[in-house]
Amino acid sequence: MTERQKGYLRQALVLAQENVRTGNGGPFGALIVQDDKVIAAATNRVIVDNDPTAHAEMVAIREACRVLGHFQIEGCDLYSSCEPCPMCLGAIYWARPRSYYFACTRESAASAGFDDAYIYEELHLKPEARRIPGHCVYMEMASAPFVEWAQSLQKIRY
Amino acid sequence: MTERQKGYLRQALVLAQENVRTGNGGPFGALIVQDDKVIAAATNRVIVDNDPTAHAEMVAIREACRVLGHFQIEGCDLYSSCEPCPMCLGAIYWARPRSYYFACTRESAASAGFDDAYIYEELHLKPEARRIPGHCVYMEMASAPFVEWAQSLQKIRY
Repeated sequence: MTERQKGYLRQALVLAQENVRTGNGGPFGALIVQDDKVIAAATNRVIVDNDPTAHAEMVAIREACRVLGHFQIEGCDLYSSCEPCPMCLGAIYWARPRSYYFACTRESAASAGFDDAYIYEELHLKPEARRIPGHCVYMEMASAPFVEWAQSLQKIRY
Repeated sequence: MTERQKGYLRQALVLAQENVRTGNGGPFGALIVQDDKVIAAATNRVIVDNDPTAHAEMVAIREACRVLGHFQIEGCDLYSSCEPCPMCLGAIYWARPRSYYFACTRESAASAGFDDAYIYEELHLKPEARRIPGHCVYMEMASAPFVEWAQSLQKIRY
């Protein structure tokens, strides 16, 4: 890892630390970098936005997509103060950056009282066995949306 | 499952099917129900919003939180046309509804060309072994944000 890259990670950590003082949300920060240029910088905004999806990585990805005018951030790298939780990791896969870097782990987050590691464990269970149970229900029309999608000529894949 | 609940799931499927015609995004719909009342209904908006995080469940959770003025939707149920992807499942854990119901599975989504099942598989790998690799980097100041969080008297847990 280059000094420049370490600088991005340091910036994410500084954002994370500052975010505790603002009260906007949890102690997390993230940056998205394209061609050695920061195109998005964000902190966790769960509390101030009343939005459980407003993790630093999510806010940064959404901002980078706004800047790029596209729903993917190919070729970009994400720098996050902490290991992305399953939600943020899923978002990374949908956004398709080149790679991501983080300083703290899910275990450190757990020690600080956050659910990241617990959610990773829950993912391994079958939906109905989870603490928030998921139920797959047979519906006669279940395939209708996918059939419509298969037949659509105007669809944009993502 | 009651007829009323099946009706919610049917509504989610109708939203999903309609969304293909609007071109707003993928063939997915979701509802959030509190005390037998739909408080949020949404479709996938990835294309129209240029936002890879705008899955139907995410949009519905964010809308429900806006309606409730809180970052959690305790006691609510989520009805989704398809099994939530890891991103949406993570969001469910942060939003803490009571349970969720879905009609199609990750396998059906895969057949329709979506990455849900593939992302679930990637989650089982170590970060550095994933197709979008994640790198944990040692940083001297890594613990600073969590130390600040531990010491904060004004923090709101989520």
